[in-house]
Amino acid sequence: MFLALSSAFPRNKNKYKPCKHLVLFFHDILYNGKNAANATSAIVAAPQGANLTILAPQFHFGNIAVFDDPITLDNNLHSKPVGRAQGMYIYDTKNTFTSWLGFSFALNSTDYQGSINFIGVDPILIKTRDISVVGGTGDFFMHRGIATINTDAFEGEVYFRLKVDIKFYECW
Amino acid sequence: MFLALSSAFPRNKNKYKPCKHLVLFFHDILYNGKNAANATSAIVAAPQGANLTILAPQFHFGNIAVFDDPITLDNNLHSKPVGRAQGMYIYDTKNTFTSWLGFSFALNSTDYQGSINFIGVDPILIKTRDISVVGGTGDFFMHRGIATINTDAFEGEVYFRLKVDIKFYECW
Amino acid sequence: MFLALSSAFPRNKNKYKPCKHLVLFFHDILYNGKNAANATSAIVAAPQGANLTILAPQFHFGNIAVFDDPITLDNNLHSKPVGRAQGMYIYDTKNTFTSWLGFSFALNSTDYQGSINFIGVDPILIKTRDISVVGGTGDFFMHRGIATINTDAFEGEVYFRLKVDIKFYECW
Repeated sequence: MFLALSSAFPRNKNKYKPCKHLVLFFHDILYNGKNAANATSAIVAAPQGANLTILAPQFHFGNIAVFDDPITLDNNLHSKPVGRAQGMYIYDTKNTFTSWLGFSFALNSTDYQGSINFIGVDPILIKTRDISVVGGTGDFFMHRGIATINTDAFEGEVYFRLKVDIKFYECW
Repeated sequence: MFLALSSAFPRNKNKYKPCKHLVLFFHDILYNGKNAANATSAIVAAPQGANLTILAPQFHFGNIAVFDDPITLDNNLHSKPVGRAQGMYIYDTKNTFTSWLGFSFALNSTDYQGSINFIGVDPILIKTRDISVVGGTGDFFMHRGIATINTDAFEGEVYFRLKVDIKFYECW
Repeated sequence: MFLALSSAFPRNKNKYKPCKHLVLFFHDILYNGKNAANATSAIVAAPQGANLTILAPQFHFGNIAVFDDPITLDNNLHSKPVGRAQGMYIYDTKNTFTSWLGFSFALNSTDYQGSINFIGVDPILIKTRDISVVGGTGDFFMHRGIATINTDAFEGEVYFRLKVDIKFYECW
């Protein structure tokens, strides 16, 4: 359904000017049974017949992963984190890669103190995808906006890095 | 608690006029161990003692189902889909049927391109229930509103169809 | 990261005056294999190697609990409930206690009829934590705000009570 697109749901986005703009990266290392020391996420639910160390066979349909991923200002996993991305992703399609995201950024740097809460569908194979910023706290008190995510790197089924371009359209 | 009501939380809704209005249906076919070809959802978490092909005994308490359900303009499962309803439902009460919903509509039709994100409690046995539309993208950029859902059809523990009457009160 | 703080993300909160203010408590009794009659929540997902009656070893990382908890006006578990807190919490860090919350209050009292929907990170060890109120229905139609939660009581791994101070900044 989405494969022909290079951008999911871009319409209307450029009509408005954001009141705040942030670009951040987060890094997810999925537990596979052998990388306990480095893993930042784990499969905690799987459909019948699948297990918790190998992503499920039908496009991972039915897996829920819980994560606590470092957030960095650039694309380097080893850069000093400015916070943690925490929450879950759910693989929710049997015939392509899509996920449903419910997660938050907890930012704790000299520039930003506060949390940002995200909800949305992630049609992973599209270059850029838009999700909703449904609220925030601290420096992001009552903010709302749109986050454009793209998969900046992907290494097998263990590591991915998402670039998150957050545009707030309601600031307080 | 809710059984005597025919509508959950209707107050205040009619004071305001929606800026956009959509009525859609989605269709959920739960995997039961035998319907892999047709199923659009699967139980992926269950409480102790329950399994992933039979809904849990106490009003399904503790089951999490992940879904990728077709959305149609009318109540016919076989109508051309205009998008997919994706996310999860959680059965969360031990002495009646209620669920907690976290899901999105990904719409991809000539009329609408974009996503709509929903969160809320669903006291299933009440005729109509209101949940929150917490954000959107594309044609629903930054929208908020209320969705009134009702169970338009229900066939045993395998199929249900929800009618979703979405009223947006914040449009951009 | 958060241990030195007594309040997570307080900035900006006092610049604005809430349009509605509610203080409520909810009570969570986690199923541990022996308290089926009293339990109001259950572990339904766990990482590899853990089970559904004992919280996971690394700061409970990877556990998802589903709950249907009584809400009271004061801190007494046995006070008459004014509604139910329903949804899930996810333990999402391997080296400290934090959780991700997705839940709702379904209020049904003489004073309030309606639901309130919450999303956010909960760095449990900090005294007070702010999460987002992303929407509401009924008496909380289209409301948004911030909820400050604190752990009012904690008894081993079976019982906790959260005080939830809800400040709405968008009322309709």
